[in-house]
Amino acid sequence: MKLMTEEFGNPSSLHSLGFGAKQELEAARGLVASALGAAPEEICFTSGGTEGNNLASFGAALSRKRLGSRIVTTRGEHDSVLNPMKELERQGFEVAYLSLDGLGHIDPGQLEEAIDEKTILVSMMLVNNETGAIFPVQQAKRIIIRKKAPALLHTDAVQAFGKLPLNPEKLGADLMTVSAHKVHGPKGAGAIYVKKGVRILPRAFGGGQERGLRSGTESVPLIGAFGEAVRLLPEPGKTLPKIEALNRELRRELAELDGVEINSPEDGLPYVLNFSAGRVRAETMLHFLAQRGVMVSSGSACGKAKPSHVLTAMGLSRERISSALRVSFSRFSTEEDVRALTEGVKEGLGTLAHA
Amino acid sequence: MKLMTEEFGNPSSLHSLGFGAKQELEAARGLVASALGAAPEEICFTSGGTEGNNLASFGAALSRKRLGSRIVTTRGEHDSVLNPMKELERQGFEVAYLSLDGLGHIDPGQLEEAIDEKTILVSMMLVNNETGAIFPVQQAKRIIIRKKAPALLHTDAVQAFGKLPLNPEKLGADLMTVSAHKVHGPKGAGAIYVKKGVRILPRAFGGGQERGLRSGTESVPLIGAFGEAVRLLPEPGKTLPKIEALNRELRRELAELDGVEINSPEDGLPYVLNFSAGRVRAETMLHFLAQRGVMVSSGSACGKAKPSHVLTAMGLSRERISSALRVSFSRFSTEEDVRALTEGVKEGLGTLAHA
Repeated sequence: MKLMTEEFGNPSSLHSLGFGAKQELEAARGLVASALGAAPEEICFTSGGTEGNNLASFGAALSRKRLGSRIVTTRGEHDSVLNPMKELERQGFEVAYLSLDGLGHIDPGQLEEAIDEKTILVSMMLVNNETGAIFPVQQAKRIIIRKKAPALLHTDAVQAFGKLPLNPEKLGADLMTVSAHKVHGPKGAGAIYVKKGVRILPRAFGGGQERGLRSGTESVPLIGAFGEAVRLLPEPGKTLPKIEALNRELRRELAELDGVEINSPEDGLPYVLNFSAGRVRAETMLHFLAQRGVMVSSGSACGKAKPSHVLTAMGLSRERISSALRVSFSRFSTEEDVRALTEGVKEGLGTLAHA
Repeated sequence: MKLMTEEFGNPSSLHSLGFGAKQELEAARGLVASALGAAPEEICFTSGGTEGNNLASFGAALSRKRLGSRIVTTRGEHDSVLNPMKELERQGFEVAYLSLDGLGHIDPGQLEEAIDEKTILVSMMLVNNETGAIFPVQQAKRIIIRKKAPALLHTDAVQAFGKLPLNPEKLGADLMTVSAHKVHGPKGAGAIYVKKGVRILPRAFGGGQERGLRSGTESVPLIGAFGEAVRLLPEPGKTLPKIEALNRELRRELAELDGVEINSPEDGLPYVLNFSAGRVRAETMLHFLAQRGVMVSSGSACGKAKPSHVLTAMGLSRERISSALRVSFSRFSTEEDVRALTEGVKEGLGTLAHA
């Protein structure tokens, strides 16, 4: 509110109103940087996760074109990485897609084989948004170093940010994407971490804002709110035990329901639980639950019409995919929420299964 | 506020919270479309003017690559058009830059010569952001038609939107960029109009939002606020007489000050007045005025460190460029504002000129 009604200047303006906005922008940058153990100048604000993943994918690949044309990624990535990869293939890059096992994991042996000394980019999400599976980002870095590959390592950490202790430097990531609206900030803001000394090409050309990496007047109100949401995050990992308990409880209750199968691995991030509700199509169950005030997703909200490419890559049956629901926990989730969900699913299975 | 605290769903989510957000998004789209006399499906939301101008430039040029490689634009465009043009030149496109005369106008004869039967894109702003000069967009369309050029016509209408009656179809534009924060909406939202039947390539790849043209979760709160700001706009052109009077008054008062020269043409949009304050450097005068609560710009806020490329293209002297200030009027501007400005400039000239 303050940034819409009082400090509403353009951070590039030279007058005092602009300077006030600039200070707010830099305060938010400091907060995001500090949450990642990074320096403020390593943070570039974007309009969200998709822009961040696009900037990292194109910006890294095109800046290293002279060094090679091989890119390694996974079949589990979000569409905002997978679709830039398809575009890069059209431009002549060779992209290797690591497959997922039935639990949504990436086999490290596969990773070892895929990364060669001509690989210029490895893009691997930290936590899968549909299943919660954790991908071996640190191992990718070790392989890059061992093979002396000229590869930048990008990780889409949208799903991990604010939930796990997160430090791109410790992780070995050169580039990391985060998004505001996954940490209770507003939709329309995000950031990418670009490790000091790493150069990638911009995607948005114009006034040269964000050190030339992302032109366009910064959305100070959204970025300020992003900073504030980050400031309000509990200590990283502090909420994990509570969410683990809720996740266990949900698994236990779902296990008692006939025909329900869990699609998330046991060792994933407990903030996500993906399950298939037997013979009831996901959309049907989703609407039934929504009527009772319980909001779940079918796969990812971003690719609503198609069957999940993640569950497909895991080799799940068509029936299991078409009935798959994704539950997201937040630090505000309660046992009551879990109960409302399981009771809803139970009733839904009774009412809808033979409809 | 409502879209941050109540209807905070993801418009791509299938549940009722998502549906509510989707409805808000579509309501805003209807409002922006209606202000342009366009259909809702012709409006694609962006994160602002820069993204819109980038999408139009790259999206149009790359989609028509098979038809030719010539692009016509002007030296007066915003950096968010000029810098994509430089990038397109690096990719092999041939870009013709129309020059400006001393009043900031584009000579129509030049336009006639520049557009040939292999031109695939003409990009020309409707109103120059630094001087208010109006560019001959409609004439460009007539020449495109007469020469049977396979060119799309893009106009950056960021500076014109909400101030002049604006109808892309009547103007002959296939693509038009507008921005929220120039019509008292928030920074971080904008739109491009894409004429029905016109296909351009996307720049952001991912979940396929905005009919596949601009992937990424829509910033519903900003877009909603954009829609609301558009709804609150007075009838197009209604405020023009008031602003014309204020502009005349400002010109009259500035004419009385020694060494002040006007850089805006008489027939431009009266919402912008650019003038050079004699021997006082723009930054110095700007800070002096800001201390008195009067906020003006030096050139465009987006390219603060460099001398204005627009005034340079107009052939103005170095001294005149380095002392140039840009005044922006809004429908809320008053005679008192004009007086505060002219008194400030007068005092500044007295205090600062020999410092």
